[in-house]
Amino acid sequence: MYFAAKNFKAIAPAARLLNLKGDSVFFRGFSSSRVSNTGNVVGFAGLGNMGRHMANNLLKKSDKSLVVYDINPEATTRFSTQKDFDMSRVSVAGSLGELAERSSIIITMLPESAHAKSAFMSPDGILSGMKKGTMCIDSSTIDTSVSAELSNAIIENGGIPLDAPVSGGVMGAEAATLTFMVGSRNEEEFLKAKEILQLMGKNVIHCGGLGNGQTVKICNNMLLGCTMIAAAEAMNLGVKLGVDPKLLASVINTSSGRSWSSEISNPHPNVSPNAPSNRNYDGGFGTKLMLKDMELSLNAAKSTNSPVFLSGLSAQIYRHTCNKDDLANKDFSSVYKWLTNK
Amino acid sequence: MYFAAKNFKAIAPAARLLNLKGDSVFFRGFSSSRVSNTGNVVGFAGLGNMGRHMANNLLKKSDKSLVVYDINPEATTRFSTQKDFDMSRVSVAGSLGELAERSSIIITMLPESAHAKSAFMSPDGILSGMKKGTMCIDSSTIDTSVSAELSNAIIENGGIPLDAPVSGGVMGAEAATLTFMVGSRNEEEFLKAKEILQLMGKNVIHCGGLGNGQTVKICNNMLLGCTMIAAAEAMNLGVKLGVDPKLLASVINTSSGRSWSSEISNPHPNVSPNAPSNRNYDGGFGTKLMLKDMELSLNAAKSTNSPVFLSGLSAQIYRHTCNKDDLANKDFSSVYKWLTNK
Amino acid sequence: MYFAAKNFKAIAPAARLLNLKGDSVFFRGFSSSRVSNTGNVVGFAGLGNMGRHMANNLLKKSDKSLVVYDINPEATTRFSTQKDFDMSRVSVAGSLGELAERSSIIITMLPESAHAKSAFMSPDGILSGMKKGTMCIDSSTIDTSVSAELSNAIIENGGIPLDAPVSGGVMGAEAATLTFMVGSRNEEEFLKAKEILQLMGKNVIHCGGLGNGQTVKICNNMLLGCTMIAAAEAMNLGVKLGVDPKLLASVINTSSGRSWSSEISNPHPNVSPNAPSNRNYDGGFGTKLMLKDMELSLNAAKSTNSPVFLSGLSAQIYRHTCNKDDLANKDFSSVYKWLTNK
Amino acid sequence: MYFAAKNFKAIAPAARLLNLKGDSVFFRGFSSSRVSNTGNVVGFAGLGNMGRHMANNLLKKSDKSLVVYDINPEATTRFSTQKDFDMSRVSVAGSLGELAERSSIIITMLPESAHAKSAFMSPDGILSGMKKGTMCIDSSTIDTSVSAELSNAIIENGGIPLDAPVSGGVMGAEAATLTFMVGSRNEEEFLKAKEILQLMGKNVIHCGGLGNGQTVKICNNMLLGCTMIAAAEAMNLGVKLGVDPKLLASVINTSSGRSWSSEISNPHPNVSPNAPSNRNYDGGFGTKLMLKDMELSLNAAKSTNSPVFLSGLSAQIYRHTCNKDDLANKDFSSVYKWLTNK
Repeated sequence: MYFAAKNFKAIAPAARLLNLKGDSVFFRGFSSSRVSNTGNVVGFAGLGNMGRHMANNLLKKSDKSLVVYDINPEATTRFSTQKDFDMSRVSVAGSLGELAERSSIIITMLPESAHAKSAFMSPDGILSGMKKGTMCIDSSTIDTSVSAELSNAIIENGGIPLDAPVSGGVMGAEAATLTFMVGSRNEEEFLKAKEILQLMGKNVIHCGGLGNGQTVKICNNMLLGCTMIAAAEAMNLGVKLGVDPKLLASVINTSSGRSWSSEISNPHPNVSPNAPSNRNYDGGFGTKLMLKDMELSLNAAKSTNSPVFLSGLSAQIYRHTCNKDDLANKDFSSVYKWLTNK
Repeated sequence: MYFAAKNFKAIAPAARLLNLKGDSVFFRGFSSSRVSNTGNVVGFAGLGNMGRHMANNLLKKSDKSLVVYDINPEATTRFSTQKDFDMSRVSVAGSLGELAERSSIIITMLPESAHAKSAFMSPDGILSGMKKGTMCIDSSTIDTSVSAELSNAIIENGGIPLDAPVSGGVMGAEAATLTFMVGSRNEEEFLKAKEILQLMGKNVIHCGGLGNGQTVKICNNMLLGCTMIAAAEAMNLGVKLGVDPKLLASVINTSSGRSWSSEISNPHPNVSPNAPSNRNYDGGFGTKLMLKDMELSLNAAKSTNSPVFLSGLSAQIYRHTCNKDDLANKDFSSVYKWLTNK
Repeated sequence: MYFAAKNFKAIAPAARLLNLKGDSVFFRGFSSSRVSNTGNVVGFAGLGNMGRHMANNLLKKSDKSLVVYDINPEATTRFSTQKDFDMSRVSVAGSLGELAERSSIIITMLPESAHAKSAFMSPDGILSGMKKGTMCIDSSTIDTSVSAELSNAIIENGGIPLDAPVSGGVMGAEAATLTFMVGSRNEEEFLKAKEILQLMGKNVIHCGGLGNGQTVKICNNMLLGCTMIAAAEAMNLGVKLGVDPKLLASVINTSSGRSWSSEISNPHPNVSPNAPSNRNYDGGFGTKLMLKDMELSLNAAKSTNSPVFLSGLSAQIYRHTCNKDDLANKDFSSVYKWLTNK
Repeated sequence: MYFAAKNFKAIAPAARLLNLKGDSVFFRGFSSSRVSNTGNVVGFAGLGNMGRHMANNLLKKSDKSLVVYDINPEATTRFSTQKDFDMSRVSVAGSLGELAERSSIIITMLPESAHAKSAFMSPDGILSGMKKGTMCIDSSTIDTSVSAELSNAIIENGGIPLDAPVSGGVMGAEAATLTFMVGSRNEEEFLKAKEILQLMGKNVIHCGGLGNGQTVKICNNMLLGCTMIAAAEAMNLGVKLGVDPKLLASVINTSSGRSWSSEISNPHPNVSPNAPSNRNYDGGFGTKLMLKDMELSLNAAKSTNSPVFLSGLSAQIYRHTCNKDDLANKDFSSVYKWLTNK
């Protein structure tokens, strides 16, 4: 997968969202900024369900030192007192500003746009301590407009931004099999980031210019959210009309109706071999996480005046599903339970 | 793909729709009826864009004789005066009743439920002349309730019904590469039908009991109709945010967002190698045909109280697309043009 | 409300649905048919929740004799053994054919299209016994295409068809306060029908040519189905944001957001004085009846290629609501409970 | 319309959105803050299509002095050089900070959330110069979360916030017939604000606690957006089935399907006496303004996990309509043209 040069201009639409008056300091230092020192110290902010596994893999698979931080002190303690890993290379920063001062590469893995914004922008945030030439890889899945705003600010402060959201879930984070979808200013910076990202994942995909990592991720997940509900509707209809669900899926999966949702994670139980639907929808990708991603997509669609009829309706369906019983934390294919009132 | 015995009861839900009082003569003669004579004469009703190619393949690939009929005399004449084929084995029936009298197997390939119903039920229709033991294979894509009604009537008149709708389009009909999705009373009758169906298609799939062929087809196409629009929305959003469409599709197609619609027939031009979108959406599966199939699905969903949120909305979108310009006769992936107002 | 002459041609679109080949015997006898004898005997078919009250009002408010029939013998017995009314003017027909033979005006009040069709068309149905010049007023709410088919058949058999579906529910039927929406061939026949309809209702509205009564009713109810859900969404959003529901409704009801659904039957409890929502959604117009009417609308929309985005989605929502708990028999404003998962 | 005391807590939900950790300085000074001096100088920020008429009415109907500001110098010049008004009481501020310093009451009328936020929060914005006890009335229609954030900041800086979005359009602004929907901390402050608001409008409605003005407005408009599309669908269906549009509307408007959209501004031309549909959808409330309001509603729905199925779909429809031809600037009832492809 090659990175087409024309994609560099891809930042423009997102940038436009932020600069109402059209003044653009966005590309300031584009060519002159330079990774002064990739060093051996990685700052890792966000030690939640995903981040702590990712940070562990950095320790396990390299000799790098880690400076870590989490807004929740318990998360930091839990991480820094692990017995399974050699913690001599880990130190805890008192603030994100301190973390930034001590790191040459910073990885952020935070739950939502507001956290990411605050992590960089707050008075003692990353930007307050960041050295020139620091590479900032944000693996959070956040609003494309916030991602662009952060990239802008990192550049203004002399850093190197990359957006690198992941897919693969907690299991992928633990097993270092994540997929990273990466946006960067140029290929050189992507390749530098890839060196470290591949310690935590199996696929590191260059999606083009800054912001494109976020875009590709939310487009994929928006589409996934739709195909799952569509598969649920078709499976339910077929079963109600008397067709065996396995048979129905087997024909669909060799035909034009097929999708990842019908084949790999069929929402009807006992159709796909390893689907969450087989174990009462436990594990997998939580409905509320799918909802969050779809809402990021809808924000982006609003910003670009892109009509999203099915995706918009799907988001409402996931919202309604999340408001029901305990489906919010089940795999999002549990929308089948919602649909069939089971 | 094995035909599970329990699927025989699959006729029940559809049958229920027809027998309001629950009296069921439906299975009368189930075990006693018997193909008295498969003979060498095939009756073929419906010589339209699909049917005439299918009938030609029967001629080409077997030594069977054909009795043909079309409500449109021009279609009959066009067929029976072809120069490319030996027409000595073809005769034209004056009515469907006559066609039935002279055939041991009857294949019907008609555009809509009303035509199929009329073809069998009208005073001089198929049932008026059908001999006991005649196998009636209906390859029309019609309402599941009408299909059940016809099967019922065929059984009552001593015939053997099978529903065998196809996918593959006119090109598949011509090249004898259609897929047949077949419902039958039992495997024996399916295997008999398969002998003749495989002369016209590549895949002959047993989908279970009577009606299941129709059901599987409309479930597949309903799902297809949804995934295409969803893919269109995701592609458009990504492109508007500045991502290269080929790159976007390539990531999606190795990820969880993938579907036949994103991979084989991507609605964005110049993404999938052979997609109709590459040739201004010419060829392929017409939007109005997709709309027709989705409306059959919605009928079936209504009859079974199955909620179809995305599919229902998709049908409205195709309807609106069909009302626009010339998109009704373009491939249904031209919904991308509708979505993007191009 | 005057009946514009141009509306007579209104039957055309529905008629077109039925006469595929364009031959039209539809208007045969248009001008020559004539009510030979309105007599004093009214045939009343369908003695269900609505019909028996309507028939009672005919007895109470006029000196007409009644010949009654219901497919369910218990309903007939229940009606003809009432103590509250003088039953000397009531006789029970052994069949609909017999009912027709003995009546000069026939009123039908049946639950669904299939029943209405069967009531007229079956071998011993109304048409088998109907005298020339008999006026047939169908108050059932049925498919516009079936209504047109029945009108066509009545005309062919020398009768006078009118479609006259009602609104007002069981309470309106009992209190003789129904609204009749009437389609007729001309004003003369409408006025004759009105004489009898006003015994059972408060408003008898001429909606134009044959079929227009059905059309107006389903258009109204389709719109109602949408505004109720929209009102539910707006009320719920406002309440969640902290606004008092009464205050919110009071502003909306003096503003552009107002509708019958927000004003007269607000889905939030304790906002509209007499709304079903105030009594746990009991009484009112059942969700499953609303669903039935919306599905009639969707059929008509399909037949005329009319896009119905919101109405289509609303139907799915009512279907999903009907599949939940006991909301099917509650007032359709109980969609508020569905929406809020209460 | 009385202001129920319990509504004061109405600020809570919106406040919660902003204070993730639950610490609340929000009500600081609730009881102690006091309008020290309503003075005679009103600051007016935002002299666009709405604001300039509103400011003119303040001049015309009172003896107050005005300090004005617009980010666009041409707007300021246009306003301050009007010939029709006595401009001796008008002065132009060099910045919003200066405007604030010189005013006892500040009215802001700005197009979008970002502008409102910037007007208050930027380094030389209103908060930089605002005196203790200044009343800040924001008549912009903006995100409920931004409105809450601004109210919070005004309180922290010793000011008195009120949200007072309007309906009535440019014509209402010019004729001083606007409706103001007002949220305030208490009734006393509402009454003070009302004195000045009634110079610019006909109805000044107290909707309860802070933020409730915004909430009521967006709930009303969200509902309006839905009923208009629903009315369009019903009118189109009826017309396609052959009913006269005036007749159809007249029945609906005396029945349960009625709404402001069917009655006052019917989307079918020549039905409602003064509807924009009668003049090719010119004038009225622009589709893109409706879209903007619906998107504010969707944001609020997202923040509160409120499902908005029909409203979400309606927003997509308006977005698609805005992308078409010139409908963005037509009245939003031009969605009828979109629906019918005219």
